[in-house]
Amino acid sequence: MRALAAADVVFHDALVEPDVLALAPEARKIAVGKRCGAHSTSQRFINKRLVDAALAGDDVVRLKGGDPMIFGRAHEEIEALVDAGIDVEVVPGVAALAAAAAGRMSLTRRGVARSVAFVTPRVGDGEGRYVGHAAAVDTAVLYMAAADAGAVVEALVAAGVPPQRPVGVFENAARPGQRILRGTLADLPATRALEAGGLPVLIAIGDVCDVLPLLAASPSALRRTPSRILAGRLRAAG
Amino acid sequence: MRALAAADVVFHDALVEPDVLALAPEARKIAVGKRCGAHSTSQRFINKRLVDAALAGDDVVRLKGGDPMIFGRAHEEIEALVDAGIDVEVVPGVAALAAAAAGRMSLTRRGVARSVAFVTPRVGDGEGRYVGHAAAVDTAVLYMAAADAGAVVEALVAAGVPPQRPVGVFENAARPGQRILRGTLADLPATRALEAGGLPVLIAIGDVCDVLPLLAASPSALRRTPSRILAGRLRAAG
Repeated sequence: MRALAAADVVFHDALVEPDVLALAPEARKIAVGKRCGAHSTSQRFINKRLVDAALAGDDVVRLKGGDPMIFGRAHEEIEALVDAGIDVEVVPGVAALAAAAAGRMSLTRRGVARSVAFVTPRVGDGEGRYVGHAAAVDTAVLYMAAADAGAVVEALVAAGVPPQRPVGVFENAARPGQRILRGTLADLPATRALEAGGLPVLIAIGDVCDVLPLLAASPSALRRTPSRILAGRLRAAG
Repeated sequence: MRALAAADVVFHDALVEPDVLALAPEARKIAVGKRCGAHSTSQRFINKRLVDAALAGDDVVRLKGGDPMIFGRAHEEIEALVDAGIDVEVVPGVAALAAAAAGRMSLTRRGVARSVAFVTPRVGDGEGRYVGHAAAVDTAVLYMAAADAGAVVEALVAAGVPPQRPVGVFENAARPGQRILRGTLADLPATRALEAGGLPVLIAIGDVCDVLPLLAASPSALRRTPSRILAGRLRAAG
């Protein structure tokens, strides 16, 4: 909030809410959002705009839709700024912790989970495989995985994960209109329908997900859910 | 901030700063901090105090020193409250993302790291081993590990991690007087001295740590560091 209030210019992602941008009433707002899969030229163009604005003497905020240090491109932007001699401060975000909070789900519940990994199936050549980590840790959180949900399930089951392992799907976590869905690993292909909506989706896999609400199975569990959480149960697609 | 401003009573950990408590000017403040290793009876006592205060009609905030959903006891508190019919909202924290931000270190830098795990060597019987995860992922963040640093290094090297792998040690991350130290895995036993100070310590292991400042090696890198980050270089103990 303090950084936004002091900003001359805010370069922001597409997924930033208007009420967050309103925290910078004096600043010029410039949308630099890009969808995943965009070319690296656009990232270089963002880097250049940040550097140019800072060198022009502006107090610049780069506002991202998730935590900047988890599966963002923050490193490239920081490096470009530091190389230009510009001081950089990073304000931490909440990343998957927002989903955990929304679901009132400890990622490391005692007696159930002592390890949690953040991984993505979106890896480049030679960047290693996510499957081993996701299968081995007690709680895995998958970023940018909904569109590949079928392949994710296949790979995890082949790696020995039971199809009945609980999963939680968080669409639009901590943002207006968030949805939390609970099911099992075998249900995950249904999340392809979510991804089609273009909203950010996080998938958690592990026994800690058993606390997430079930719409049909337990009306009492649903009543206990804060009203701003819309609970649902995953259904297998088609 | 909004939850604290509305609170009638705040139950807080020992590691909460006074200026955070000042955000709840109207509330009674009750310290319920316990050091790790404390008996579970005291956790049950905290649960009971939370439930009693909520049943008495108070707007209750339970304020923790880290993210509630990562290596806290939030699940037990949430369960006790939900079982008593009390509605619970969880506000996410920043956890190790605060350390990443303070060090301007992406945990998942493209081309270097596509997986990050949060683990702890403080596991109970039958709760699995952290070593395999910490050795396998690109970036491992160890909680509550500084006191056992010697054993951690021994276990990781035995699991195949090179002793020269970069590490970052974050003492008091995102709090006044934070310190960030960069070294290699082999240097880690020096962190026992940090732990003796009683402040929270996070240890990151992975190539992403190579961006952390080095006090002696690169004066220019140090000049680029925000003044509130005190840089240092780990030295092997004794």
